[in-house]
Amino acid sequence: MSRQDRLALSLVVEPGDARLRDLLQVHEPRQILQAVRDRRPLEDRPVPAAWSERVGDLDRRLALVTSRAESAGLRWICPGDTGWPAALDDLDHLAPLHGVTGAPLGLWVRGAGVLADLCRQSAAVVGARDCTTYGAECASEIGADLADGGWTVVSGAAFGIDGCAHRGALSMARPTVAVLACGADVDYPRAHSTLLDRIAENGLVVSEQAPGEGPMKGRFLSRNRIIAGLTLGTVVVEAALRSGSLNTLNWADQLGRTTMAVPGPVTSKQSGGTHEAVRGGRAVLVTSGREVVGELSGLGLDSTGALTLPSTEFDRLPPTARVTLDGLGWDRERSLTDLTARARLSAREVRSALELLERRGLAARRGDGWRLVRRADVS
Amino acid sequence: MSRQDRLALSLVVEPGDARLRDLLQVHEPRQILQAVRDRRPLEDRPVPAAWSERVGDLDRRLALVTSRAESAGLRWICPGDTGWPAALDDLDHLAPLHGVTGAPLGLWVRGAGVLADLCRQSAAVVGARDCTTYGAECASEIGADLADGGWTVVSGAAFGIDGCAHRGALSMARPTVAVLACGADVDYPRAHSTLLDRIAENGLVVSEQAPGEGPMKGRFLSRNRIIAGLTLGTVVVEAALRSGSLNTLNWADQLGRTTMAVPGPVTSKQSGGTHEAVRGGRAVLVTSGREVVGELSGLGLDSTGALTLPSTEFDRLPPTARVTLDGLGWDRERSLTDLTARARLSAREVRSALELLERRGLAARRGDGWRLVRRADVS
Repeated sequence: MSRQDRLALSLVVEPGDARLRDLLQVHEPRQILQAVRDRRPLEDRPVPAAWSERVGDLDRRLALVTSRAESAGLRWICPGDTGWPAALDDLDHLAPLHGVTGAPLGLWVRGAGVLADLCRQSAAVVGARDCTTYGAECASEIGADLADGGWTVVSGAAFGIDGCAHRGALSMARPTVAVLACGADVDYPRAHSTLLDRIAENGLVVSEQAPGEGPMKGRFLSRNRIIAGLTLGTVVVEAALRSGSLNTLNWADQLGRTTMAVPGPVTSKQSGGTHEAVRGGRAVLVTSGREVVGELSGLGLDSTGALTLPSTEFDRLPPTARVTLDGLGWDRERSLTDLTARARLSAREVRSALELLERRGLAARRGDGWRLVRRADVS
Repeated sequence: MSRQDRLALSLVVEPGDARLRDLLQVHEPRQILQAVRDRRPLEDRPVPAAWSERVGDLDRRLALVTSRAESAGLRWICPGDTGWPAALDDLDHLAPLHGVTGAPLGLWVRGAGVLADLCRQSAAVVGARDCTTYGAECASEIGADLADGGWTVVSGAAFGIDGCAHRGALSMARPTVAVLACGADVDYPRAHSTLLDRIAENGLVVSEQAPGEGPMKGRFLSRNRIIAGLTLGTVVVEAALRSGSLNTLNWADQLGRTTMAVPGPVTSKQSGGTHEAVRGGRAVLVTSGREVVGELSGLGLDSTGALTLPSTEFDRLPPTARVTLDGLGWDRERSLTDLTARARLSAREVRSALELLERRGLAARRGDGWRLVRRADVS
């Protein structure tokens, strides 16, 4: 009954806690749950006291959550279930960001869709809550274009860009997926309760938070990793410098998914973050849903909008990995410090890029250094 | 009297004619002029008949041009003269574009400035004639910011972006350089005659066309190579897809100078060409004069606007050369066809990129193929 163990564990551990990811790499959910109950370490690894404190009234909370889920029409899906999107498992390989990482233990879903089917061809369209009219139009257009082309729009159902992206998809009578930072039965923002109902009609409202949970601050960051993890790529439509919406782009980049950003007037603060992402090589500039599809299909569009040659393996690497790859040599190992300086990225970004390059058989670690194994080549 | 030979030759051969560039690589201007007069080939190379037809009334035209130049206050400057910008000589290494290439034989200049001094720290700011209000504002701002930072704005004095860029520089009481497709004494466009006078007060109005010559169609394309050749980099502020303003960017790219483009609303046709240039890796996205300076100084700006680490040799390569370099291997020679397919560029672009890589000691030709000599590395 790993499904029930996972559900129980999700009520004890804050979803996305990086320490849980580490434990799950070695132990079964049931063993972890038992250790939490027994307040004993798992092998040499201590189990956080806060988890044990929450385990006291677990049975009562399980009953409550189950009844809430039933009355709201929520289903609990887990790794191994039909409908579980395998793409989420990539989250298990990521370095923690603000203490958050890992695939979710499971997801609560509300609505008619099948998550894995919906996400097979999907793109995240996200951005600022306080967007401009221009940004709202772009998000609606891109959402509608993607949906019209058979792509599922995944977003966070927030005010601004998120809501417009969902509505764009709904306007084409196509399903869309909302991932919430609160329970999937909680209408947040409240003014979007009708929107959320509309989304659930053909698509899905999704959350790793238990039914009834509120949208606490840290939960937006952990929710964003799921938006990035469910999709082939993330488009940021509008984001000011250091906006939270860039966080989803960051997760997508770490995951090796395609990262994209929409430009806007340079006089607009809400395009400051998207422009910086493009300038810094962290996102590809896109101006339409058609271009988004082109990027996600590994195809380019020429100036007439026609599809061009398939891209190379190198092109399909996320920007951070491309820059990191450029710093690697055949001749000798290079240190992380050296590579970080060359790439002009953070050590964390370079570490994660190296892991990706290693998974794709392009780089190898020897001792403290990294070197090229082979060049990224034409597919 | 090579200066006078060059002047005479410039009245016989349409400036920018690629055939002249080829002859000048082997022969002195005087020898070429003599061959034109004698209607005989130079070694085995024929001298175009059209040149010889124009040589008939050369003495009369020389006298006319000299008197026009005198009354308009134009000076003729040549390679070897103080004030001749050596940067123009790079044009001699470029493959022809529409039959045009090569450093100018000399330039007619009007105004108080010294061209080489003005161009030492300079940027081309160019774009659409029929620009939007947004584009006009961007061009003025960038022109003013560059001028304020001690950078000379070079442009084409056309309506739209060009005029705004010049005016931005003039608004800071700094010199600016206009390069015309007609004689430097011809007010084109006529409505800009006061602007051209203002430019000449502290800066320069420049042309390779003889005094009195009109702005014929092909001359805009050959004029653009001079704008690119005089400057460290070119910024396109607004350009529709396939706009002529992208031609200057193209010359800058071929020259290995920095290529930049300003984004705008994706709904604006006048930003279609700049967005495509950024998407295609042919230009770096810039949003301000400060960022332009950052790119030209080989420095990056972080999100707070502070300068970051100097860029690597790889970063300083133009985009076409970077993509071409990525396609080269150590293991074996690769053919031009192969490299063109990998780079998704035109054969002409790849050929020119390979020449640049060869000049910088990064690539070498062996037989019909090309291979890596060393990797572009940290400076």
